[in-house]
Amino acid sequence: MAPQYAPSLRSRLGPLLFVLQTGFILIFAFCAEVDSNVNVNGSTFKDSYTDFQDVNVMVMFGFGFMCTFLVRHGFSAVGFNLLVATMTTQWAIILNNVESWYYSGKIRLNMRSLVVAEICTVSALVSIGAVLGKTNPVQLVFIALLEVSGFVLNEWLLLNLLKVRPGNSMMLLHIFGAFFGLTVTWILYRKDSEQRFEKEKVDHKSGLFSMLGTVFLWVFWPSFNSALLSGRSPVRKLECVCSSYLALAVSAVTAAAVSVIFNPKGRFNLLHLQSCILSGGVAIGVSMPVVLQPWEAMLIGFAAAILSTIGFHLLQVGTTIKHGNCVLLLIHPKRALNSRSFLFFQIHMLLAFQCHDTRAILSTHGLPGLLGWLAHFILLIRQCDDHTTAVRFAVFHICTLLITITTSLSMGILTGTTALCWDSLKCVTFRVSVTITHAKLR
Amino acid sequence: MAPQYAPSLRSRLGPLLFVLQTGFILIFAFCAEVDSNVNVNGSTFKDSYTDFQDVNVMVMFGFGFMCTFLVRHGFSAVGFNLLVATMTTQWAIILNNVESWYYSGKIRLNMRSLVVAEICTVSALVSIGAVLGKTNPVQLVFIALLEVSGFVLNEWLLLNLLKVRPGNSMMLLHIFGAFFGLTVTWILYRKDSEQRFEKEKVDHKSGLFSMLGTVFLWVFWPSFNSALLSGRSPVRKLECVCSSYLALAVSAVTAAAVSVIFNPKGRFNLLHLQSCILSGGVAIGVSMPVVLQPWEAMLIGFAAAILSTIGFHLLQVGTTIKHGNCVLLLIHPKRALNSRSFLFFQIHMLLAFQCHDTRAILSTHGLPGLLGWLAHFILLIRQCDDHTTAVRFAVFHICTLLITITTSLSMGILTGTTALCWDSLKCVTFRVSVTITHAKLR
Amino acid sequence: MAPQYAPSLRSRLGPLLFVLQTGFILIFAFCAEVDSNVNVNGSTFKDSYTDFQDVNVMVMFGFGFMCTFLVRHGFSAVGFNLLVATMTTQWAIILNNVESWYYSGKIRLNMRSLVVAEICTVSALVSIGAVLGKTNPVQLVFIALLEVSGFVLNEWLLLNLLKVRPGNSMMLLHIFGAFFGLTVTWILYRKDSEQRFEKEKVDHKSGLFSMLGTVFLWVFWPSFNSALLSGRSPVRKLECVCSSYLALAVSAVTAAAVSVIFNPKGRFNLLHLQSCILSGGVAIGVSMPVVLQPWEAMLIGFAAAILSTIGFHLLQVGTTIKHGNCVLLLIHPKRALNSRSFLFFQIHMLLAFQCHDTRAILSTHGLPGLLGWLAHFILLIRQCDDHTTAVRFAVFHICTLLITITTSLSMGILTGTTALCWDSLKCVTFRVSVTITHAKLR
Repeated sequence: MAPQYAPSLRSRLGPLLFVLQTGFILIFAFCAEVDSNVNVNGSTFKDSYTDFQDVNVMVMFGFGFMCTFLVRHGFSAVGFNLLVATMTTQWAIILNNVESWYYSGKIRLNMRSLVVAEICTVSALVSIGAVLGKTNPVQLVFIALLEVSGFVLNEWLLLNLLKVRPGNSMMLLHIFGAFFGLTVTWILYRKDSEQRFEKEKVDHKSGLFSMLGTVFLWVFWPSFNSALLSGRSPVRKLECVCSSYLALAVSAVTAAAVSVIFNPKGRFNLLHLQSCILSGGVAIGVSMPVVLQPWEAMLIGFAAAILSTIGFHLLQVGTTIKHGNCVLLLIHPKRALNSRSFLFFQIHMLLAFQCHDTRAILSTHGLPGLLGWLAHFILLIRQCDDHTTAVRFAVFHICTLLITITTSLSMGILTGTTALCWDSLKCVTFRVSVTITHAKLR
Repeated sequence: MAPQYAPSLRSRLGPLLFVLQTGFILIFAFCAEVDSNVNVNGSTFKDSYTDFQDVNVMVMFGFGFMCTFLVRHGFSAVGFNLLVATMTTQWAIILNNVESWYYSGKIRLNMRSLVVAEICTVSALVSIGAVLGKTNPVQLVFIALLEVSGFVLNEWLLLNLLKVRPGNSMMLLHIFGAFFGLTVTWILYRKDSEQRFEKEKVDHKSGLFSMLGTVFLWVFWPSFNSALLSGRSPVRKLECVCSSYLALAVSAVTAAAVSVIFNPKGRFNLLHLQSCILSGGVAIGVSMPVVLQPWEAMLIGFAAAILSTIGFHLLQVGTTIKHGNCVLLLIHPKRALNSRSFLFFQIHMLLAFQCHDTRAILSTHGLPGLLGWLAHFILLIRQCDDHTTAVRFAVFHICTLLITITTSLSMGILTGTTALCWDSLKCVTFRVSVTITHAKLR
Repeated sequence: MAPQYAPSLRSRLGPLLFVLQTGFILIFAFCAEVDSNVNVNGSTFKDSYTDFQDVNVMVMFGFGFMCTFLVRHGFSAVGFNLLVATMTTQWAIILNNVESWYYSGKIRLNMRSLVVAEICTVSALVSIGAVLGKTNPVQLVFIALLEVSGFVLNEWLLLNLLKVRPGNSMMLLHIFGAFFGLTVTWILYRKDSEQRFEKEKVDHKSGLFSMLGTVFLWVFWPSFNSALLSGRSPVRKLECVCSSYLALAVSAVTAAAVSVIFNPKGRFNLLHLQSCILSGGVAIGVSMPVVLQPWEAMLIGFAAAILSTIGFHLLQVGTTIKHGNCVLLLIHPKRALNSRSFLFFQIHMLLAFQCHDTRAILSTHGLPGLLGWLAHFILLIRQCDDHTTAVRFAVFHICTLLITITTSLSMGILTGTTALCWDSLKCVTFRVSVTITHAKLR
């Protein structure tokens, strides 16, 4: 069955895009100019350009093709992704330079501002992953633009309240994006979570495209993690690239191992691989500033992959149970108990009962992101010499996480509620107009 | 039904390729050597190499996979593209260095000469787009080699008559390629345009591959536009990359908006997206030398996407009408009038009735190219201080376009006619031989 | 029918991966550190990083998607490839730095050590190509790890016995990998070569993915060949890139020509293209140090493509005959004789009867590698001034090949035999346990 967009919405997408795009062009016309100083942040133009291209490839190919596993969505996933990404990047360029515009009256475009905007876009694409296949393009654009606004606000709060450097606060995008997306999908779809979404069916034929997207992300993740580091310290960049590569390699092997152990027939579950081989990259991205030794990176990748795969597995069990209306839990208690940590399982069950996470962003981005934060915390404390500094760092670090999660949840609630109200309003309008039409016809 | 190649042709492809390839090797054996001066045009080897790789990726992946949307062609599109591209690049290396060979007796190979040859190849691949699915490989190779010869001739004419710098004249490839391709397909297929070409059916299953090719082109287009700029002025390169990226982003959003407005059900038409999201890159490539502000680039991308999408839409209507033998126009006058600008529609109808453009190169490359030329013209005039200079520039600029179109059309007529004569000759020979065989059998 | 893994094996993959991965992490924890000197071998960090990325793209996309042409294997080919590649790269980093660890107690990680490890991984992926679709993941990991050990041993032998520089001995990976893989498949599958392997069926739907992988390899092969050259001599790098590109272009055209000539209907055989367009890159990689002129590279590409395509064609005929139990040879003597060089055919027949080469690595890597060695030999002798030097070089060069092939064959026999014994042991254990279970049940 084709998706049921309300007719009013359908006719609004075109004009909405036109208005937004014209607005962006006007803002750029009055404020933007190309920076005449090319070597920003110690990198030459060419170096920043290859960084930009790698991130761009991840955004367009990685996230675009990763979502093609949905039957009805396959074809349009790439198109929607392109649309959302291009809109969001333009909006992120503007938002990131609001301060510069306030002081100098100009938005300065250079390779670094484009890279930063693309990374903000990634946080929006992470959130979008939770509502894909259940949402129409107008909602997608709306959610993405609000998510980016919230993300930039969070960065600004962290910078001004706690003096967190942008390079570090940007990497919290996985945590921010995951919690934002989960909140939105929790608000929008808790009512009808009993019924299976028809557009969400997984197609094994288009699985190879999905794998293609995942491998794009896997290969270019080291570039993503090191894109914001200054070109002045190539040693730092080398450490970052080596750590990211090793963490990704270890998490690929570990995710495969856990996947095989969980599968009763001893096969790979490709959905596990797709979601969990990236967890090492996510965790290492968050904990990057304090990872100094290769083995620390490998250990973080190892732990992230185990956490992510177990999370995905339990979430899937939860989802299956949810759809079967709790009967499955009674019939197959073994399968549920099979998942050793029962407490953890309960938490997940709660989440799974309440919200509906299409691309499993909780286990792909949320949990590894939190693990990365924890690794950052532990390594930071361990590197401290005296007790006082350690406590100060600990408080500072916990505050960073709390602010991020609070901003993320509140922006998510705001976005979800607005979308819900709008939707109800629209439905009411639609029903009224239908009733009127019917009345007229009689 | 399998494509009907005349048997004589079939047996000729192998030997033809062998002879051409041996000829190229002999020419290289006597004339070519690797340039010992690596830093050509102010770029280091590594910088030029990444430029070359990006263009190479566009040629092989972008154009190769973009054409996989044809049912019968899907599998061989990539193969034919690879064959034509590798032949044409070798030929373009030779042609571009004829002058250097004339004066110094040597063809000098360096990264820049390879990049220039690849860009010439792109102009041939644009032309090929119009005849794909209707032509056998021998004809494809023949058309591609003649197209490149014409393109290099045009560049030489512009350089010697009007002192147009190669960097600027190369970017006219979209206009040259589109008109060349349209002329060839007009000559070859005007007779039997009533019948639908069986190999031209579109397959929605391989649409994702086609989208993959388009996204490859979209992502690497900024590299393509900036590949020929000198490494000595990184600010110019930065401006070019920023402008190209913004124009592409705006044209992606705008093409999606126009596509939704045109579609009666309010859905995306993926064929629109595939053809029209690149129009911003085409237009900005042609008008690059005078675009200074980001908003100018965005406005050009905006206009190009609208023009390209409307063009594609009308052309499709025209094609449908053509095949239905004008009946459709009478039955669904609304659908035809629906397309607001009726005058423009008429021009397109004429074109659509006479020629048959498989990959819609008129709306993908031709119209945005002309728009880019127009933008270049207007911005150039606006930047002039006094009246005399403005008039001189205007005349100079109009002459550039006229020479390009004239060369393109005349080379197209030459190529088409030769192919047609050859084909008729071949058919006659074939029929004669068949008749003789029949006579013998009796 | 699903593949029949013995149950004991199935349960062992997970723990095996865990143990290996934990072992690697422990080794890295005690020995590895990131090199503080970034500019290794005259290249800046950014230059080495782009080299690394290109090789990484080849390993993950190229080899991963090239093998998706098998029906049952398509989906898991990419997954297995990712698993094997990440395991092997970690192991190769350790092995390559054993000497440095012995003297300084530290494994130093930098971009060059990662690139070298990736190139070792390529040699393992070449070998794996011969046994794909017939082997379970435990065997794949086992074979890959032993192959890399053998390859590093061979490099060490060549360095210490003949003073061959690592940059040159690395490029013998095609010869080493092909002979290793063929030996392993010869030992493992000579018994049951009569039956067609069910998992080996070719799927024409996933052919485009396979083509995608091949084009990835084709495009990034120049980076692969030039990755190990020192950044201090950009002229040498330029020569290498130009030669590789020209050889690849020529071999693409030639493979297409030969493929058309061989096909009775005058069509392209896409399997020919997939296997043979890369032969020029393989041959030029092996002969790189002595290729000075572009035409030499083109001639090597030309010869390699002819050899590779003929090799593939004959091998295919051989395989078909083998499966038809020699009857086909009697019925269609023309088809067999059709392949002009009968002697060569006989040799191939012998090979084809005895071993079973899934991805045709003999004609893709083995034969072009040997041709490259021969070209190196001839060009080296021709460049010598006096007789004595020529003889010394000839002996030295022949010894290099002999040592490589000897190491390759003996490591292959060792690996194959171990796998076979292990398999038999496992089968015996399995049967015994089944018998016991049956006995108990009675």
